[in-house]
Amino acid sequence: MVRFAKRLDLLDSSDIGDLLRLIARPDIISFAGGLPAPELFPVEALKQAGLAVMEEMGTIACQYSSTEGLPQLREKIVERMAVKNNIHATPEQVLITSGSQQGLDFAARVFIDKGDVILVESPSYLGAINAFKACEPTFIEVPTDDGGMVMEELEKVLATTENVKMIYVIPDFQNPTGRTWSLERRTKFMEIVNKYEVPVIEDNPYGELRFENDTMPALKSLDTKGVVVYLGTLSKIMVPGFRLGWVCAKDEILSKFNTMKQGADLQTSTLTQLQANKYMDMNNLDEHVNKIREVYKHRRDVMMKAMKEYFPKEAKFTYPDGGLFTWVELPDYIDTKEMALQCLEKKVAYVPGGSFFPNGGKNNCFRMNYSCMSDEKIIEGVKALAEVIQANLK
Amino acid sequence: MVRFAKRLDLLDSSDIGDLLRLIARPDIISFAGGLPAPELFPVEALKQAGLAVMEEMGTIACQYSSTEGLPQLREKIVERMAVKNNIHATPEQVLITSGSQQGLDFAARVFIDKGDVILVESPSYLGAINAFKACEPTFIEVPTDDGGMVMEELEKVLATTENVKMIYVIPDFQNPTGRTWSLERRTKFMEIVNKYEVPVIEDNPYGELRFENDTMPALKSLDTKGVVVYLGTLSKIMVPGFRLGWVCAKDEILSKFNTMKQGADLQTSTLTQLQANKYMDMNNLDEHVNKIREVYKHRRDVMMKAMKEYFPKEAKFTYPDGGLFTWVELPDYIDTKEMALQCLEKKVAYVPGGSFFPNGGKNNCFRMNYSCMSDEKIIEGVKALAEVIQANLK
Repeated sequence: MVRFAKRLDLLDSSDIGDLLRLIARPDIISFAGGLPAPELFPVEALKQAGLAVMEEMGTIACQYSSTEGLPQLREKIVERMAVKNNIHATPEQVLITSGSQQGLDFAARVFIDKGDVILVESPSYLGAINAFKACEPTFIEVPTDDGGMVMEELEKVLATTENVKMIYVIPDFQNPTGRTWSLERRTKFMEIVNKYEVPVIEDNPYGELRFENDTMPALKSLDTKGVVVYLGTLSKIMVPGFRLGWVCAKDEILSKFNTMKQGADLQTSTLTQLQANKYMDMNNLDEHVNKIREVYKHRRDVMMKAMKEYFPKEAKFTYPDGGLFTWVELPDYIDTKEMALQCLEKKVAYVPGGSFFPNGGKNNCFRMNYSCMSDEKIIEGVKALAEVIQANLK
Repeated sequence: MVRFAKRLDLLDSSDIGDLLRLIARPDIISFAGGLPAPELFPVEALKQAGLAVMEEMGTIACQYSSTEGLPQLREKIVERMAVKNNIHATPEQVLITSGSQQGLDFAARVFIDKGDVILVESPSYLGAINAFKACEPTFIEVPTDDGGMVMEELEKVLATTENVKMIYVIPDFQNPTGRTWSLERRTKFMEIVNKYEVPVIEDNPYGELRFENDTMPALKSLDTKGVVVYLGTLSKIMVPGFRLGWVCAKDEILSKFNTMKQGADLQTSTLTQLQANKYMDMNNLDEHVNKIREVYKHRRDVMMKAMKEYFPKEAKFTYPDGGLFTWVELPDYIDTKEMALQCLEKKVAYVPGGSFFPNGGKNNCFRMNYSCMSDEKIIEGVKALAEVIQANLK
């Protein structure tokens, strides 16, 4: 009898996977994904970049390269973090990963022994929760409100809990809620984590996709003690199919991530690193990001307008300043997982909210994505959804 | 105080890493690596493949794709395994990984809880041992001889050990020894593991690089109970910088690997998968592999001839039928880690053998690679090495 490791017991609940497969049908208007809009990919420019790489350094692109990642790409990332996030790091403090998902996996493996405590926002990113589960942690969910994680609650948990080994947060346009932490929360947060010296995983895939209002400083930019591990990615601002993300942390912590990377897959693809790097040499990435921002802002507007118009007043939803998602909360008595099946009949889909709470229990919410669809589909989908919600109200 | 997970305690001995960095100096003749010969990379053909992919399906190449890997690439791999290894699988039994190193990492995470036993050949691949250590296993080394793992010893261990959760083997041109298991050993091995129903990780990165004699059947081709997890890779027959490997296992086991992949990095690069797939559409991979085989065979011959000529008779070494490595055993009283420093002064390098024994202790061996160097360098390096060995003999 083949016996599997115990960590898999926690990971095998695949009902969300089953649902996601169901809604991949082409006739479904799916607000469930989190995909970048494919029509915005800089295909021609990336093609030229690939061509240039193979012509100028084809042999290097084909060969193994260093575990840490290509120096020239790490330098560009350092420059970008300085300009966009006011983070001042050296290339030696950056590890290139296969998407920031790999940074999440490594974070748990670097900090978490079985039973150790991870604090997360309640709700938090499903993919992070699942990656963390492979290290068999205990999750404590810290309550959130429109301004982000509630600091009084965080402090209470830290003051009374042993073995808090890391705190995972998405302060900008959070997945799934679309919310952004206020400046006050950020300052207070750093004060608290500096006091307790708990490592913080700051996941920032959407930060550059801000539609309005001021950019908030990254937690990492306020980090005086080196406790923040910053995760970035090119997936949402350039191209997800290349699988390029990064971890930025102070040397002692980053060296542990490098050790994990070595064992996990030796290195990220030499080709995709060189091609992305060349793209940035040959093009103005900022201009491209502006284009994405404009389109997503418009779609956010279309979705918000439709939801205001068609959703019953019992449905509360967030108004994101950027990113890809809004979060809908229905009356307690509605189970959005059951409702998802009714929505399927109306050919519209979302991700039921339950999976975003690691300890379970809150089933009256769902996540909606607006980045990946035409205006007409958004309106049509919101209308259909509104009807189903209406039918479920008591 | 930031506290790290305990698994890192096992992984932090980086003296081998320090040594490898030292010998990366360009003035050193290094037999230490395991790199494919860069002058053989099909750069032009891969460039054309990349161009075709971006022109025909650029948007798809840029987007996220499925965790399991692209169906068309998995189909090609299934066909290739059928022809080359007599393995009959379906595309659904294949997961594309970021190199076969990722398959090693997943194997441990799928099967190993802390303290569980992994059986390995003694010696075994350093990178596998390190990947496995992240799951905090106990290693038992099974003795080997020129015909591979010694079956009587394997049987003894299995009969007397609890919690053997997997057996890791490289039956073809093993890393580090270059040895290949005999047919009798393979048959006997499958008999034994079928009896005990222990999962087997068959790592086969070099199988297609056979220089002479008959191909041996893959263990997976003799697997009647579905206990063998087969790891393959394009790194040694096409291109390592794309990071493309695969896991082939029966459905129940593979689904666990898919779960790990989802959490670890969502998926392998869409672009590199499509580009490798297109390369295989546009070119004859077999012809390319023949070319590699010819060059490596020649270099093996040059190295063997030089070692026979210059090495003192006290140095025993293996004669590989294929692959990238030979393994040298010196008298017990010579410590090859200390000797490596003397070699550095003579500007020649190898990997000291100690790191290939997970439980330590055998320090009179070293591994040499011949795939990546000119005839002249091979001869010059072997001469220099011979002098150092001679000087260390009592």
